[in-house]
Amino acid sequence: MAFSSELLQKAVDQFSTLPGIGKKSALRMALFILKQPKENVELFASSLVNLSRNVQHCSECNMISDSPVCPICSDRRRNRGIICVVESIRDVLSIENTQTYNGLYHVLGGIISPMDGVGPSDLPIAELEKRIEGGEVKEVVLALSTSMEGETTSYFIYNRLKKYDIKITAIARGVAFGDDLEYTDELTLAKSIENRQPFNI
Amino acid sequence: MAFSSELLQKAVDQFSTLPGIGKKSALRMALFILKQPKENVELFASSLVNLSRNVQHCSECNMISDSPVCPICSDRRRNRGIICVVESIRDVLSIENTQTYNGLYHVLGGIISPMDGVGPSDLPIAELEKRIEGGEVKEVVLALSTSMEGETTSYFIYNRLKKYDIKITAIARGVAFGDDLEYTDELTLAKSIENRQPFNI
Repeated sequence: MAFSSELLQKAVDQFSTLPGIGKKSALRMALFILKQPKENVELFASSLVNLSRNVQHCSECNMISDSPVCPICSDRRRNRGIICVVESIRDVLSIENTQTYNGLYHVLGGIISPMDGVGPSDLPIAELEKRIEGGEVKEVVLALSTSMEGETTSYFIYNRLKKYDIKITAIARGVAFGDDLEYTDELTLAKSIENRQPFNI
Repeated sequence: MAFSSELLQKAVDQFSTLPGIGKKSALRMALFILKQPKENVELFASSLVNLSRNVQHCSECNMISDSPVCPICSDRRRNRGIICVVESIRDVLSIENTQTYNGLYHVLGGIISPMDGVGPSDLPIAELEKRIEGGEVKEVVLALSTSMEGETTSYFIYNRLKKYDIKITAIARGVAFGDDLEYTDELTLAKSIENRQPFNI
């Protein structure tokens, strides 16, 4: 599509670099920007630049944070005896959203994936060990995905941590709420039968 | 959803003001921004600010443009005897995309809509009349939507222009390519039978 304005063209090109945004949505966004008061657009632009320039990673758990130690790690009400290992920032947000977990996190920022050139040494596993060696940690919960890469990473971390006197657990796999048994894959269904729980209301 | 970073929170809030973007997509975009090199993010931000600050409206047709007169109006190869009246910038882009129209445009920037407080005097209709009075224009094509507001606006413009010695036309309505007759609304189907054309391959 040819535009009558280079400025519009550039904004559309930029919007279409965003994940899940095609040319049509990008145009819609650029035209939306065009209708906004200049101050709002400047606020938008500066929020992106600020995020990119000023955000830090927590020196303990690797979560993004505005300060050297993130609000979760510096919250004294949280259970410091349990660390949940996740792949990404987004996983932390999802787990926090459930409001059922009160421990700390360790964000790997990736998983072992030879295809993408990510090996064990690229992940902050030594940092996780150092946290365990601090002596406060009683349990590590592995909450990685069930993809081949996720399982490999879980297994690798398990092997590295089994020398410590701590409990190593993994999040439960099973049939999700609202899912039909009929459409659940065999592996998940088998796991959910194997790990059946006492019934309670 | 609570974030561990105010900077992230602000960027997500900004992204979710965009049309069609909910909280989850906004988070995805903010995390994408976080992964980009700082220079790319600054380029993104400045493209938005530039668009907002520097874009102009063509003094003839009201289309957005980087210069006082847009590339379409200043293109001497285009037929200056015909003006297509459209609601928005996006409509111009859509029509240009078909590569079948070689005339000029007149962008209203809205349609008459009492509900939204838009009256005839808010639209650049006097400017359209001035262009016609220039003497070069032979035909005005009304290409507004078929909503009640669109029809009202078309009718209003028709009434204002009928005193001039020009042809006033409207784009054809009919069954779209690929549409089933079965699922076409009666009004459209009736119109497309009424306006039937000699068959040619």
